[in-house]
Amino acid sequence: MTDLDALPLRESLKGQSPYGAPQLDVTVALNTNENTHPVPPIVADAIVQSVARVAGGLNRYPDREFVELRERLADYLGHGLTPEHLWAANGSNEVLQQILQAFGGPGRSVLSFLPSYSMYPLLASGTDTEFIDGGRAADYTLSAEHAAACIRGHRPNLVFLASPNNPTGTALSLDTIRAVYDATEEVAAAGGPAAMVVVDEAYAEFALAGTEPALTLLDGRPRLVVTRTMSKAFALAGVRLGYMAADPAVCDALRLVRLPYHLSAVNQATANAALQHVDALLETVEEIKVQRDRIVDTLRDYGLTPAVSDSNFVFFGGLEDAHAVWQGLLERGVLVRDVGIPHHLRVTAGTEEETTAFLTALAEVLGR
Amino acid sequence: MTDLDALPLRESLKGQSPYGAPQLDVTVALNTNENTHPVPPIVADAIVQSVARVAGGLNRYPDREFVELRERLADYLGHGLTPEHLWAANGSNEVLQQILQAFGGPGRSVLSFLPSYSMYPLLASGTDTEFIDGGRAADYTLSAEHAAACIRGHRPNLVFLASPNNPTGTALSLDTIRAVYDATEEVAAAGGPAAMVVVDEAYAEFALAGTEPALTLLDGRPRLVVTRTMSKAFALAGVRLGYMAADPAVCDALRLVRLPYHLSAVNQATANAALQHVDALLETVEEIKVQRDRIVDTLRDYGLTPAVSDSNFVFFGGLEDAHAVWQGLLERGVLVRDVGIPHHLRVTAGTEEETTAFLTALAEVLGR
Repeated sequence: MTDLDALPLRESLKGQSPYGAPQLDVTVALNTNENTHPVPPIVADAIVQSVARVAGGLNRYPDREFVELRERLADYLGHGLTPEHLWAANGSNEVLQQILQAFGGPGRSVLSFLPSYSMYPLLASGTDTEFIDGGRAADYTLSAEHAAACIRGHRPNLVFLASPNNPTGTALSLDTIRAVYDATEEVAAAGGPAAMVVVDEAYAEFALAGTEPALTLLDGRPRLVVTRTMSKAFALAGVRLGYMAADPAVCDALRLVRLPYHLSAVNQATANAALQHVDALLETVEEIKVQRDRIVDTLRDYGLTPAVSDSNFVFFGGLEDAHAVWQGLLERGVLVRDVGIPHHLRVTAGTEEETTAFLTALAEVLGR
Repeated sequence: MTDLDALPLRESLKGQSPYGAPQLDVTVALNTNENTHPVPPIVADAIVQSVARVAGGLNRYPDREFVELRERLADYLGHGLTPEHLWAANGSNEVLQQILQAFGGPGRSVLSFLPSYSMYPLLASGTDTEFIDGGRAADYTLSAEHAAACIRGHRPNLVFLASPNNPTGTALSLDTIRAVYDATEEVAAAGGPAAMVVVDEAYAEFALAGTEPALTLLDGRPRLVVTRTMSKAFALAGVRLGYMAADPAVCDALRLVRLPYHLSAVNQATANAALQHVDALLETVEEIKVQRDRIVDTLRDYGLTPAVSDSNFVFFGGLEDAHAVWQGLLERGVLVRDVGIPHHLRVTAGTEEETTAFLTALAEVLGR
């Protein structure tokens, strides 16, 4: 076996490690923000039947335009969206990669606000797009003023906004998104780049009451893109189905960079079946929100500082030694995420039992 | 709806059209080199059962390392390969894209020999890798001398060799591949780049008797990569499962650029089921080779000039107006591929009935 250093790797990759949370075999896995509820039997059955209908014809390439899937996604999202506004890929990571391939690249830049989804800098690097970190307030919030000022200052080609943010879990107000888009118009009017504004709503279905989705802002904003996923609320992380809604011209742009037939016929069949059972799939969302709010309340009781969460996870600070707590939880069979921010950890809201296991283990580790 | 030109597309994409053969609804589709035989019922059943076993757990992310799939692919390939030598992605296009992301990019180049697989220049462009065309002889063959001379002259960072070539269908001799690799060693020894040499064996299973696969050359050549696919001989184009065999360090390099969890659990389950029925899937290969040889013989009888084919398709010249013939065939319900080379077309070898339909329609169109 050859050493990796002996291969002609690109300079930017030398010394890097692969991205990814540890896939450890633990009783209570609350580290990757999956929906920990199994797929309901009615949905699992529908998936199997849907795959059975396509299995004999898998010798043929899939529908490159995944028309049925785009129709079903448009129906699910509502807001007057049509299949022409929809696009999908193997996980929202691939959607974001395609957006960077179409609108980023060498000599172009993407602005985001760290800490945020840790794939953003990696996706930028993978497409040779310069990554600019606009930073956040000390409490990890992002104000409309700060975001707009960063855009005026850096004049990026793309802006990535996670709402709710990951790892912190808090949603952006629509005012902030409007201010960001307005700032890109200002920059463009002054001769700078007209930036694409991507709002990553992977966790949108878990929003607190009153939080509005950025989908409501699409009309009249051709450079606004809202990405979503079936991995979280839909409990289908295994299917790797990410999607976006935007002006149809954005979909046309992605058609120029997508690999041909990028969505397999079995993935399409699986997602199509699931989208016929939206109610059954989303049934767990309310339960997860209850557990999330319970985590927030209990952690406050423990003297910790959880962030406001519009998602299915809770980011919490106030730990003396976050990694020691992560290790103590793991020893008790509970896997959470050490996102590399001192004194903080992130935990997924699981089932009631999993949440109890986490809170109990944490109390033990903290000696509460 | 906004016009695509109104969006801030990358310069290199402006005015481009999406890649892809027309997906027309015809009786006899022989344009994308699919295996036109339906998936055998025993395999379709195994796929459905395999998906049924994973459906309830789709709420979790898939095995990021697709260990079972790599084991099964290594078993299938033989030649002493282990799971550590194997890697897979959503189609061999994605494998090639990952290879370019790891070893190509801005300031680097990939050499290939056109006409060849039409995705190579697009994949280079999508990863900002300079594409260099070394060209071929007038009869579209590629000699060891010419290939090696191109490498010494251009000093590329990667070399893409299709064997058999597409659209021409002819395999490379192992001598040519050895000469290419040796030339890259020469260039590296002289202080130039140590190029990755990728042999794309998408159609390897259709090789004429006596054609040896490049897999036999992997040992001792850490920069040699052999890509394969389940889309062709395996009759699973709909599953989008491409893979490669190489030194384990190459797999480690691709781990640095792959999107996390890029292979869905349903794709993995489908491929794993199929690989338990290799004999049933490959049963059609011999039949397809018979039809391919029949096409070659008959086209010669028609006075045309078909290339030697180690694949499931035939590239043939001698047409006065290739596009008119393409159109005439389409009017008779037979869709073949106009690859943009004057006086030539490419046809997939289908079932006996499809082949008869093609040959009959062609005789009519040519007035034979």
